Order: sequence, then structure tokens, then C-alpha cells
Amino acid sequence: MPARRKKTPDQPHRAALSKFDRNALPPASVCNGTALRKATRRVTQLYDTILAPCGLRATQRSILMHIARAGIPSMGELAEALVLDRTALAHNLKPLQRDGLVKITVDRQDKRSRLVALTARGEAKIMQSLHLWEQAQQRFEKAFGADRAHALRAALGLIASADFAQAFDMATGD
Amino acid sequence: MPARRKKTPDQPHRAALSKFDRNALPPASVCNGTALRKATRRVTQLYDTILAPCGLRATQRSILMHIARAGIPSMGELAEALVLDRTALAHNLKPLQRDGLVKITVDRQDKRSRLVALTARGEAKIMQSLHLWEQAQQRFEKAFGADRAHALRAALGLIASADFAQAFDMATGD
Repeated sequence: MPARRKKTPDQPHRAALSKFDRNALPPASVCNGTALRKATRRVTQLYDTILAPCGLRATQRSILMHIARAGIPSMGELAEALVLDRTALAHNLKPLQRDGLVKITVDRQDKRSRLVALTARGEAKIMQSLHLWEQAQQRFEKAFGADRAHALRAALGLIASADFAQAFDMATGD
Repeated sequence: MPARRKKTPDQPHRAALSKFDRNALPPASVCNGTALRKATRRVTQLYDTILAPCGLRATQRSILMHIARAGIPSMGELAEALVLDRTALAHNLKPLQRDGLVKITVDRQDKRSRLVALTARGEAKIMQSLHLWEQAQQRFEKAFGADRAHALRAALGLIASADFAQAFDMATGD
């Protein structure tokens, strides 16, 4: 690996190591991906605990809600709306299908495509989860601030968008 | 379920449904957990693509970096730092152990505890990933704005903290 010495005052953590030195590694707090993953894990755990009485995990509830809003989306549409790849979506749908909350059928218009629909049981499960989810939302907003939560969701919505992925791809790292 | 009619102007989506009506469901954009998960999936996918040449996924790199910074953390310390439960941590460590990047040993001081350390190969892998990670960070900050990214990481750091979990637990939903 050629030695790289690009350390500049505004980028104090720009790695300029040619040899492993753990004290010279960038701190955990500067990685945007790590910051997102940790906050997401925390909030998912907190919401999971509140949702436990209805038997859904936060991630599962979110999938059911996306299906409910979309009507009968295709797997591709659902994966896109959830920012999940199809393998991860299929993996997440399995327990919901097994518990009779969703039904997956072949699209008659396009036999290569599969459609996902809520069952009556899935609709009932959503109704059962609504009040618990509201409690989790209210706790979050009391702990974090309602205005800050609103601004945070706007920033996160931008980051999750296909436009952001395009801007990221267009940007160069050097 | 007793009918709940608490709809107020500032909480237009407070669920007041007694019967499933998909047009009356709260929009996806208001769930703090969903917003976090989608943004996290997007950024993890984008970072994964940039990191691909070094053979690490963003989540794996993040775990290696946490071990590197901590020295020889216990599984419990590492799980806490990553906001992962121990089962998920063990699951994530398996491929890293298999590839010879980390070594897990029994703590001599406390035989119930396991310690995690980087191998020389794990250290070399971190060095190999640094420049790719910097590229991903720079692309993120070009697409999102460096100042905004800084503010976002601060907000996410707060949400990921144990203090936030405590504030969430103390808040009541009603």
C-alpha cells in the first residue's frame, strides 16, 4: 500500500497510517453509517419492547404497514419502499407468511412477479398494534423533542431516497 | 377494543380507527423507527458498495473498528458499544472469526466471560479498508453536507445512548 499523507486540519481523522496504530484510528462517532446503525438498533429495541404485547417486532410492523398502505404491492415495489433488497425482504416476510398475516401470490399479469397482500388476520394485527405504536412514538418524542424528531425524520427521509443514492454515486471521494 | 377518538389537530395521525381502513393509517414518514431503518439501510448499502474491494461489509468493518479501539473487549462490552444484543453480536462475529480476522478467548479472570481480539490479519484488513471508508464518508458529506452530517451524527449519538433509553423508559405514552 503506498504511503498516503493527506492529513489536513479540517480532516483530523483522515487516515494517514501506513502501519496499524489503534490510537490513530478515527473515532467511532465520525462514521455516518455507524451512527445510523447504532441509533436504529436502539430505537428498534425500544419500539420492540413497547410492541411486544401485540406479538410484532417493529421491523415486522413496518412491513405490514407498508403493505397496508400500498394495497397489493409487488415484491419489487415493497422492497423499494422499504429500502430492502429482495433477499432480505423475502427473509423478513417468511414469519409473517407463516403466521398467516400476509399472503404471497403470483401476479397474473406478469408471472415472474409476486404480489404481497395482507390477510384479514394481518389487518387485525395492524389494528391491534396501533395504540402500542403511538405509545412508542410519544415516548420517543418526549425523550427527544417533537420538533427535533420532525426535523430528524425529514433528514432521514432525504438520506433514504433514491435521489440521495444518486447524489452519493455522483460524488467522488477524492 | 374500545373505540378511541383522540384525534387532535397537532396529531392528525393519532389512530382513531376501530375498523381497518388503509386510507386512515398514519403515513410511513411519521414513524421514527421506520425513518431510521430506511436511512440506515440506504447508507449501509452505499457504504457496502464502496467497501466491496476490501471484502468487508460496512457492519463488519464497524465491528472490527470497535474491537480495534477497545483493545481486547469482553463480548458484553462490545455488544454495549455497538448497541447489539449478544445473540446478534455472536451471529455477526462468526464470519469474522471464520476468516481469521478476530479471535475469541475465555477471560482468565472470569471464565464465564469471553474476550474478543483482532488478529494480525484483522489489523491488516482495517488498514486496507481505511481509504475506502474515507471515500464513502466524503461522498456522504458531499451529498448531504458536512455540517448537516455533523449535526445528524450528534443527534444519532444521543438517540443511541443509554441515557436516551432511560428517558424513553421514563416517559409515558399517554
